Amino acid sequence: MEYRTERDSLGEKRVPAGVYYGVQTLRALENFQITAMPVATFPRFIQALAAVKKAAALANMELGLLDAGVGEAIVNACRDVRAGRFDDQFPVDVIQGGAGTSVNMNANEVIANRALELLGHPKGRYEVISPLNHVNLSQSTNDVYPTALRIALVWYARELSTALRDLRAAFDAKGDEFAGVIKMARTQLQDAVPITLGAEFAAWGVTIGEDIDRLDDAARLLCEVNIGATAVGTGINSVPGYASLVRERLADICGLPLVTAANLVEATSDAGAYVMLSGLLKRVAVKLSKICNDLRLLASGPFTGLHEINLPPMQPGSSIMPGKVNPVIPEVVNQVCYQVIGNDLTVTFAAEGGQLELNVFLPVIALNLFQSLQMLTKASRTLRERCVVGITANPERCLELVRHSLGVVTALAPVIGYETAARLAKEAQESGRSVPEVLQAEGIMTPEEFEELLDPAKMLSPRDVRRR
Amino acid sequence: MEYRTERDSLGEKRVPAGVYYGVQTLRALENFQITAMPVATFPRFIQALAAVKKAAALANMELGLLDAGVGEAIVNACRDVRAGRFDDQFPVDVIQGGAGTSVNMNANEVIANRALELLGHPKGRYEVISPLNHVNLSQSTNDVYPTALRIALVWYARELSTALRDLRAAFDAKGDEFAGVIKMARTQLQDAVPITLGAEFAAWGVTIGEDIDRLDDAARLLCEVNIGATAVGTGINSVPGYASLVRERLADICGLPLVTAANLVEATSDAGAYVMLSGLLKRVAVKLSKICNDLRLLASGPFTGLHEINLPPMQPGSSIMPGKVNPVIPEVVNQVCYQVIGNDLTVTFAAEGGQLELNVFLPVIALNLFQSLQMLTKASRTLRERCVVGITANPERCLELVRHSLGVVTALAPVIGYETAARLAKEAQESGRSVPEVLQAEGIMTPEEFEELLDPAKMLSPRDVRRR
Amino acid sequence: MEYRTERDSLGEKRVPAGVYYGVQTLRALENFQITAMPVATFPRFIQALAAVKKAAALANMELGLLDAGVGEAIVNACRDVRAGRFDDQFPVDVIQGGAGTSVNMNANEVIANRALELLGHPKGRYEVISPLNHVNLSQSTNDVYPTALRIALVWYARELSTALRDLRAAFDAKGDEFAGVIKMARTQLQDAVPITLGAEFAAWGVTIGEDIDRLDDAARLLCEVNIGATAVGTGINSVPGYASLVRERLADICGLPLVTAANLVEATSDAGAYVMLSGLLKRVAVKLSKICNDLRLLASGPFTGLHEINLPPMQPGSSIMPGKVNPVIPEVVNQVCYQVIGNDLTVTFAAEGGQLELNVFLPVIALNLFQSLQMLTKASRTLRERCVVGITANPERCLELVRHSLGVVTALAPVIGYETAARLAKEAQESGRSVPEVLQAEGIMTPEEFEELLDPAKMLSPRDVRRR
Amino acid sequence: MEYRTERDSLGEKRVPAGVYYGVQTLRALENFQITAMPVATFPRFIQALAAVKKAAALANMELGLLDAGVGEAIVNACRDVRAGRFDDQFPVDVIQGGAGTSVNMNANEVIANRALELLGHPKGRYEVISPLNHVNLSQSTNDVYPTALRIALVWYARELSTALRDLRAAFDAKGDEFAGVIKMARTQLQDAVPITLGAEFAAWGVTIGEDIDRLDDAARLLCEVNIGATAVGTGINSVPGYASLVRERLADICGLPLVTAANLVEATSDAGAYVMLSGLLKRVAVKLSKICNDLRLLASGPFTGLHEINLPPMQPGSSIMPGKVNPVIPEVVNQVCYQVIGNDLTVTFAAEGGQLELNVFLPVIALNLFQSLQMLTKASRTLRERCVVGITANPERCLELVRHSLGVVTALAPVIGYETAARLAKEAQESGRSVPEVLQAEGIMTPEEFEELLDPAKMLSPRDVRRR
Repeated sequence: MEYRTERDSLGEKRVPAGVYYGVQTLRALENFQITAMPVATFPRFIQALAAVKKAAALANMELGLLDAGVGEAIVNACRDVRAGRFDDQFPVDVIQGGAGTSVNMNANEVIANRALELLGHPKGRYEVISPLNHVNLSQSTNDVYPTALRIALVWYARELSTALRDLRAAFDAKGDEFAGVIKMARTQLQDAVPITLGAEFAAWGVTIGEDIDRLDDAARLLCEVNIGATAVGTGINSVPGYASLVRERLADICGLPLVTAANLVEATSDAGAYVMLSGLLKRVAVKLSKICNDLRLLASGPFTGLHEINLPPMQPGSSIMPGKVNPVIPEVVNQVCYQVIGNDLTVTFAAEGGQLELNVFLPVIALNLFQSLQMLTKASRTLRERCVVGITANPERCLELVRHSLGVVTALAPVIGYETAARLAKEAQESGRSVPEVLQAEGIMTPEEFEELLDPAKMLSPRDVRRR
Repeated sequence: MEYRTERDSLGEKRVPAGVYYGVQTLRALENFQITAMPVATFPRFIQALAAVKKAAALANMELGLLDAGVGEAIVNACRDVRAGRFDDQFPVDVIQGGAGTSVNMNANEVIANRALELLGHPKGRYEVISPLNHVNLSQSTNDVYPTALRIALVWYARELSTALRDLRAAFDAKGDEFAGVIKMARTQLQDAVPITLGAEFAAWGVTIGEDIDRLDDAARLLCEVNIGATAVGTGINSVPGYASLVRERLADICGLPLVTAANLVEATSDAGAYVMLSGLLKRVAVKLSKICNDLRLLASGPFTGLHEINLPPMQPGSSIMPGKVNPVIPEVVNQVCYQVIGNDLTVTFAAEGGQLELNVFLPVIALNLFQSLQMLTKASRTLRERCVVGITANPERCLELVRHSLGVVTALAPVIGYETAARLAKEAQESGRSVPEVLQAEGIMTPEEFEELLDPAKMLSPRDVRRR
Repeated sequence: MEYRTERDSLGEKRVPAGVYYGVQTLRALENFQITAMPVATFPRFIQALAAVKKAAALANMELGLLDAGVGEAIVNACRDVRAGRFDDQFPVDVIQGGAGTSVNMNANEVIANRALELLGHPKGRYEVISPLNHVNLSQSTNDVYPTALRIALVWYARELSTALRDLRAAFDAKGDEFAGVIKMARTQLQDAVPITLGAEFAAWGVTIGEDIDRLDDAARLLCEVNIGATAVGTGINSVPGYASLVRERLADICGLPLVTAANLVEATSDAGAYVMLSGLLKRVAVKLSKICNDLRLLASGPFTGLHEINLPPMQPGSSIMPGKVNPVIPEVVNQVCYQVIGNDLTVTFAAEGGQLELNVFLPVIALNLFQSLQMLTKASRTLRERCVVGITANPERCLELVRHSLGVVTALAPVIGYETAARLAKEAQESGRSVPEVLQAEGIMTPEEFEELLDPAKMLSPRDVRRR
Repeated sequence: MEYRTERDSLGEKRVPAGVYYGVQTLRALENFQITAMPVATFPRFIQALAAVKKAAALANMELGLLDAGVGEAIVNACRDVRAGRFDDQFPVDVIQGGAGTSVNMNANEVIANRALELLGHPKGRYEVISPLNHVNLSQSTNDVYPTALRIALVWYARELSTALRDLRAAFDAKGDEFAGVIKMARTQLQDAVPITLGAEFAAWGVTIGEDIDRLDDAARLLCEVNIGATAVGTGINSVPGYASLVRERLADICGLPLVTAANLVEATSDAGAYVMLSGLLKRVAVKLSKICNDLRLLASGPFTGLHEINLPPMQPGSSIMPGKVNPVIPEVVNQVCYQVIGNDLTVTFAAEGGQLELNVFLPVIALNLFQSLQMLTKASRTLRERCVVGITANPERCLELVRHSLGVVTALAPVIGYETAARLAKEAQESGRSVPEVLQAEGIMTPEEFEELLDPAKMLSPRDVRRR
């Protein structure tokens, strides 16, 4: 293999001749062998880094800090990186020490070498275009990394938002489809009162809808960036006017309503926005998990469970029990939810670990948020496509359970009083007779009265049942 | 002791004659002996329950469902309960099974017996005023408990909001006071670049300010209540018009902008709002913990630490080491933060555990949210009063550290390039000479130039340092 | 009110004349107003502190460091404190800053004043018996507090161990009682193969039994104490021989197999034993929660659920639904489990927060471990007494579900092959016929063969079913 | 591309002709697209699966259930799979629904097709060798998957154990190297009393050593397997004697002291062993994180921090601050620790989610435990190789801090009393004089006395300092 020699303040290293990254990326590769997941696992992050570098180059040119020839080459290199052509040149482990310095330097080196290439220079000619003095001009890892991270998070959050919107629509559609299926509601897993299966599906749609709103709120807060803060928020080594200019250019490039954080010192050290987003993803996970638990309950059986609905069979369910079909899709979604909840804890720990002017643990925060966003997106899509849209109801089974249940005595309480109704329920249960039979035997009301009162279809909304 | 006899659907029990609660509360007392914390530990919750019961009585009267004499007595009883006169009559353990039924029944019984008393009846005359048929009329635990819970949470959240506002103001004031104290910023605990001590305190103020905003958002979402949902969200056993009327009365009584949830089935089963609030409290905890970690770092020493600030001494620090004074206030706040983070996990588990039409684990959610809100409120006050307002700076020490640090070479990089600056820093460190000495020895720039460049006071904001 | 004046290195304070604690406790009371839970909430901790103080006094006397008159008085005072006579003199908030210094000083002051009283001196005559120079002689908070904490934890762990043993016995007894109740096992909530209800209860007994063993292991590890380490593990201000002597005396006093940690520097800074215990309590919680989830599932219904078992009714289940009875005991146990899991996270955070020679966050660790141990103990007792012992089976319902289930085709697979068995199951489900009917129709085996094969009672253990 | 057609109970599918896996694996690939991590990410798991399948084939042959020709072919196929030759044939996502059925079927299909190949048959000739009737004979996913999981966990745990042993040795060596470096201990980040740097490193060694012991305990518990339980622990579709025979063969194959769980119903549904292991890995993480926090503190500076030790520089520390070198290795280890702590929560949730006879969430448990074990192994190695072994001390700096500190007054307390010592410390601090100066000025003791008393080197262990 051929090599070129590069050096940094720790000395020289031989870099494979063909690669676009340089000496600092190489050191990072040696130092950080933890996850086997390169930064490129999350391509949107690389795209965001390229966008930041491009915005900085544009601002530096406008401010007269960067020669147009060099600047244009950098801008063009950023374009190529953002297009995904150099993803394989971002091999740094997604978790590293150094608060993202290795990732920033990876970007600086790849962009410098691509820019050199575009100008016809060999790789490594950093006296012409330097990763540090040109590509990283007016910047610090401490503003580049979090700014790119936030942009990438907004992009991934939008994908999740779309997936949740689709899932919500699927639940809504089933809510309509099952609007006429009367069934017993269960509270504490005990027979409660009638409801429709459609109302249950519609409620799941609504609850997901609320998360979409919150996710959009969170994305808005993430659009507050600290680019221009440089090392610690004071803007050292940047010139007056740079912060607002670079942010403006970056907003244009990304098509996002970015704003510069009001206090850049705070913005550079604080990890609150990540905790917020992570907490929200945890909420999505809690809700999806609860929904999947419910789906598995309602589909339990077919003979020894509730069996009110059927999930579409996706694969044979057992290597020993022939004919068994399992709720594998809700089950895999549950597991994604558990992972997201665990990831939230990792983010919490990392956020709390920040010290003084910086949170050095952004890489593990990035990994966990990216992963949670992606997994939730995929899980939402899977749940919709491979489960929800194919769910069918067992209306007869549902109705049969309503008919046998004692829960309907609830509707009698406003007329005959709670205590009497409770006594009737007890009698019915102990004697094995139905509530109407007991009612009739006791002569408490006419058959017409209780028929009217006990019609499950009339128990689905408020009504005036006062005895006339 | 004297007793009266009460009965419910499980049979008779002897209730101490003097107590306002009844048979169901008694059963709960026997069943749930877990925390030794009665519901009355959180008086705002009792106040909110009384408000809900009053609103229901008013609505029921207006709708002609409740006799005015009985209704007025209930309303007056609610007034007395809300005034705190019967807090000792709410002995039910704050954690119980039954999704809050025991707490709702505790309120129903106390209010019924107080209402009976106001009308001159002995306790237990439930045929006159019944806990179930009158006090609980048109209601279910499943809408009463969560509605009262949300109201109480909003009230406690406002107290926290006030405490955080005061804390923020204290940090802001110190930010002003220390605006002229130049010191080294540290990133990754390593010497970075100059900043002011005031900027650090101001940043803490800002970061807390953001949480106040989020807390107000969360309170707004909590004002969405499900009263009128009754058992499962269908409004069974309520009459048309009741839901909006009771919510209106309740909003008046509490002075809160309550709205009825758009989908009552969803609102009755979902615990998302609690997860959201809890996640936010976790965020507050993460931030406060990070601030306290920083305070302890900056005050470390006095001789073997950073010693840039002095925390007010609150108590002797050691039973063995005379003269030692410890940062006990930040330390106790750290611990509160850890508790809040743990409580958030409990809330998460409880929320995920909801099944079908109900989350039966609201009591443990209530406990943890109440506790976290109260502890954070007290911790914020303690931190402000017993620590932040009394902090003093050691400006000479701060400046001395700036003078000896190599971090100032950062300011040279835009002029002499990153690589040369790095080389100088290395030379200075290895030779033990100061950066200006090395600079001068190398003749890289005139003394005037580097004096201008290396003035820490000029490194605190963007500037144009291009070589003229 | 009358006062006496005491002073410490921060100055003078007026102490109520009647109290046994002194100036440092008073400062702690002012500084730490967080939980409203005094240390005395956990009386075993006070007992353990008294034991440590007594052991130190004995060792100091034997080593000639403490005058016998003073020493005896201290020993007697410790006896009275351990007997619980001064619990109300331990008002310090269970969470405090200072790594337990306030608790240690609270003990030192109460013991000194009680010793003074026993010798006929007024409180506060510290030149005769000093909280610091006599009661705390050869000690530091940093060895006293963790040693007492560990002893108290062992004591509370034994109570939990007893409660779990009783619970296990209750499950075992039900396992025997239900050994003949054949039912369908469910995997993934889907019909699986026959099992007995007794096997399910026996399995719960076994799983709890494993936790008892682990708890005993953990208690053994907690018996490794650092008394004699003094401030940081070097034994400063103690004399040679003291560490082993005080540990020996303490082991006698407590009746515990205490050993001195092999490395006292490590033992003074490390919180690993607490993380271990907490992780184990989390495991107990996970198991109990899973069992309670199962109990609630099996008891679901009565008409719309599985209804294989009946939990004893403990209280009316609803304020709106007459006759409803809820599984309130498993529900409250679930909530305890969630709390314990949350507490484990608090312990984790606090343990990770230790720095250099000390973990200053022991108080919050103590609170959470004490609370988890106590809550699990109470929950285990409640579960046993108010639920498990009263559970009854519905054997006919169980058998009926077995008869209708398709799961029995599993037993055919070894004879007719998995694929054929799967096809039969599908045919039976689609046609609504029973498996035997389909089998017969297809002439796959004789009625005698499949009667033998499909007898659920024969599917409960390995058997040789090869076709003869 | 060429295909072969396979069918299962859900119908036919076209399988690429060249692959060894079959129709069920294909369905799993379509259903589960979540993590982009195939099972083959953890090769030891595949090896363990192959070992289980081989043991089952051997036992089945010995029991006369499996034809020798078929059995031998399966055994040989297992050998090839275990050798890693077919890792790329295990593409199923490591997280799936179905409790591991897809992984078990993936193994069954690959082994069947490899066995067919070895016998000269084309792939898919399942009537000759069937994935279900032959490879999976006497087995269920519910005993195969957890048994293989436990074996793989033991193997990975041993790798971690080795890495921790090496790390411990590195700390021990540094403990020896720095045994003579006297420095100030810090408690609560405040000056405490003298200690040696060596004692600090030795303590880290000891604390890691304890985890190695616990890890070995956990591995022992994991050797309890449920193979032979088949579907739900009753051993359905296995013959008498199979369970002990297959476990014996498996123990031989793996070289592990495997035992059959005493209660197979419990062992099939319980996830306690995973919670235990995960809790232990969390403990390792908490300890490693604390150590890394300490390393970062002690190495802070170089000018504005503690600077008692130097970490080896691994890469330039900043893209903006020339010459900055960061503690990147401890930082990356901290992040691994946060991930492991988060993963523990995921395991906890998954374990709690088990229902009735099975925990369907084993796949996410497997993922998180594998990942935590691997990450901790890599982190431990990285910490040792790239940090600990290269750490150097700054003994002059350490001694200088001791000399200036007031902490040494502690040694005076046993002689002059705590209160006087505290007063001296205060005077020294306020006047800026050294403790000896103040002592001399006050004439409290002779210069010889305090020179003897205040020699830091004599404060490192117990001594008798009573005034003669």
